[in-house]
Amino acid sequence: MLDTVSPSTEPIPLAGWARSLQPSAIQDMLALLARPGLLSFALGLPAAELFPKEHFAQAVAQVVSNDPVAFQYQPTLRPLKTHIVRLMQQRGVTCCEEQVFITTGAQQAMNLLIHLLLDPGGQVLTEEIIYSGLQQAIAPFQPEILTVSTDLETGVDVDAVEALLASGARPAFMYAMSAGHNPLSISMSAEKRSRLVELARRYHMPILEDDAYGFLYYDGQGAPPMRALDDQWVFYLGSFSKTLMPTLRVGWLIVPEELIEKLSVIKESSDINTSTFTQRAICAYLDAGHLPAHLDTLRQEYGIRRDAMHAALERHFPREARWKKPSHGMFFWVELPSTVDTGEALRVAVEQENVAFIPGHAFAVGNSRQGANCMRLNFSNCPPELIEEGIGRLGRVLRSL
Amino acid sequence: MLDTVSPSTEPIPLAGWARSLQPSAIQDMLALLARPGLLSFALGLPAAELFPKEHFAQAVAQVVSNDPVAFQYQPTLRPLKTHIVRLMQQRGVTCCEEQVFITTGAQQAMNLLIHLLLDPGGQVLTEEIIYSGLQQAIAPFQPEILTVSTDLETGVDVDAVEALLASGARPAFMYAMSAGHNPLSISMSAEKRSRLVELARRYHMPILEDDAYGFLYYDGQGAPPMRALDDQWVFYLGSFSKTLMPTLRVGWLIVPEELIEKLSVIKESSDINTSTFTQRAICAYLDAGHLPAHLDTLRQEYGIRRDAMHAALERHFPREARWKKPSHGMFFWVELPSTVDTGEALRVAVEQENVAFIPGHAFAVGNSRQGANCMRLNFSNCPPELIEEGIGRLGRVLRSL
Repeated sequence: MLDTVSPSTEPIPLAGWARSLQPSAIQDMLALLARPGLLSFALGLPAAELFPKEHFAQAVAQVVSNDPVAFQYQPTLRPLKTHIVRLMQQRGVTCCEEQVFITTGAQQAMNLLIHLLLDPGGQVLTEEIIYSGLQQAIAPFQPEILTVSTDLETGVDVDAVEALLASGARPAFMYAMSAGHNPLSISMSAEKRSRLVELARRYHMPILEDDAYGFLYYDGQGAPPMRALDDQWVFYLGSFSKTLMPTLRVGWLIVPEELIEKLSVIKESSDINTSTFTQRAICAYLDAGHLPAHLDTLRQEYGIRRDAMHAALERHFPREARWKKPSHGMFFWVELPSTVDTGEALRVAVEQENVAFIPGHAFAVGNSRQGANCMRLNFSNCPPELIEEGIGRLGRVLRSL
Repeated sequence: MLDTVSPSTEPIPLAGWARSLQPSAIQDMLALLARPGLLSFALGLPAAELFPKEHFAQAVAQVVSNDPVAFQYQPTLRPLKTHIVRLMQQRGVTCCEEQVFITTGAQQAMNLLIHLLLDPGGQVLTEEIIYSGLQQAIAPFQPEILTVSTDLETGVDVDAVEALLASGARPAFMYAMSAGHNPLSISMSAEKRSRLVELARRYHMPILEDDAYGFLYYDGQGAPPMRALDDQWVFYLGSFSKTLMPTLRVGWLIVPEELIEKLSVIKESSDINTSTFTQRAICAYLDAGHLPAHLDTLRQEYGIRRDAMHAALERHFPREARWKKPSHGMFFWVELPSTVDTGEALRVAVEQENVAFIPGHAFAVGNSRQGANCMRLNFSNCPPELIEEGIGRLGRVLRSL
């Protein structure tokens, strides 16, 4: 009989890209958030007290008692796809059930498309500061990441995109968030959306349009997503995590029908299928017609929190700080003078004032110092009085640096 | 304003490996199974009528009413890890919570390890006939697949594994199922388990030990999994899909603690986290102590079905057919004379007798014709009288060829 404890102390040989793999800023933050009483603007959390728990419990009870196959492996649920087609109409997007692909959250949707489109060492086009989950998901492919800058009023620098493509760049895809950009909190101008779509068509470059925050708008819906302008080159990513509850782990893609069969194979190899039980529970919740009122509640409450954070920033932050009041989403992006290091500011904020945020450089592509004087502040997961308190504390930290 | 319908008919440029990607045999089968009244031994489905629906509904109700954070993003649940540590003890495996990693089903567990270990173009070591989900999951890396044959009594050819390693092969990992092999329905001999583990240590080759069927045994538990022999080079994959319900999409890994942090990053980039709600519901179910009796029921019922299929095969199949009564799992693997093409037999079986199975070559690595005279028959998802009826129909098909 062999020993239970191996005598070997040899390191386990990992894939090349994984050897230098580090915990994400978000994971580091989760550890930090364990501090008792910490007031956090760090993570992109929805407000748990607004979750539609009662109506969801009714939906769950209905599925448990009436649906004999809800617990078995099952093909994805067509009635849920029909609900998603209707939701997309609310975003100004025309699509059909055959273009809808259900995933285990929008992060998986992104991951599946990356596997479908990106060769090892291939090119990806993004902004210089983007959602870190995209960076993590492309890392195993060790891609060449082409970046363009972003205007904090109108969004991605489309001239730079055009120049890259005209000079021969052939990215497997461009990643874009047109509404409620995470972390930059911009909504892209309608003109830029049109121009980007035109470039995508001309150069046959798929755009992965991440619309996780598209249903959370506070000053009217704004321009429709780019998928409303093109159904061949814009692949749309949607999610129930921000509108219903993250724990559901259900998201979707709207893609050309020709891709569905291949996506199904990649999905099967990723996690077989998305929980039938959860799909049916969401479907029962949507059948009961609860979503519109719930979205109204979210928009109203989050709108109040956004305004509270804007007012608190005006009251407590140094005059040199710059931000734009976001029209969509869950975040403020605050730029401080270039001498401020928000990584250092975070350390002080946590230790001296028990308040947290995410430093901007956590979202910078590669090892760039972009965003090192910026902070991302979440406003959805904090009631107005705590927003006032926490921004006051952060103001003290910034004045003390 | 641009047109909604793109004028382009250019094909969307896919990653190289994805261009030739075909639907899996299992997906083809799902379509076929839509035939009304089809009697199917095809898919690896647990028996839905044995699902512990009532106790699970109680667990769900408890989570919905008592657990305020069950719907939020959350770190994985330590009490669930403690339950898994205890379950592993039942399999003869000693481990601790720090070595447990919760995943969205065992398929995701496999997928995460592949991303952690396998470089593009790297080597993978498997048997010639294996679970197709492993083949799908490694496909994006376009690996060099090294294969060894399998003895249908004792399992993988360990001499061939040793010869490959001695001659310089350095696979990123070897994939193995020691109990209730899918599709070959073998349990590996204890001697071969020891020898494989010794090779893994000597050559620093991780073994991915897929134990999805380990808790489903019908003649006593048998030898413990290889993870009981080594905690450094054997990475264990477990699942609640076969013991509780597939829809839960919760599985686990037991790995050296040093890998957990990197796995967490890959997991986050795959689907953020495994549904907190489902984790808590499973935990509540296990807290209530329902699992042991449920496993007894499954072993008893599936044991009856296994014996029914064995008896029916003896009654109805041609004398030249060969199979071994499985000690674990959900399948029979039946070898027919080399002149029989089970792909053709399936077509006849569906059209003339409305009965289905999976032809063996669907599990062959690459484009090999291995298994072309074999069939995989599932016995867990069919009551004994229908097993008798279906095997009778298949016997008629085989005699008619």
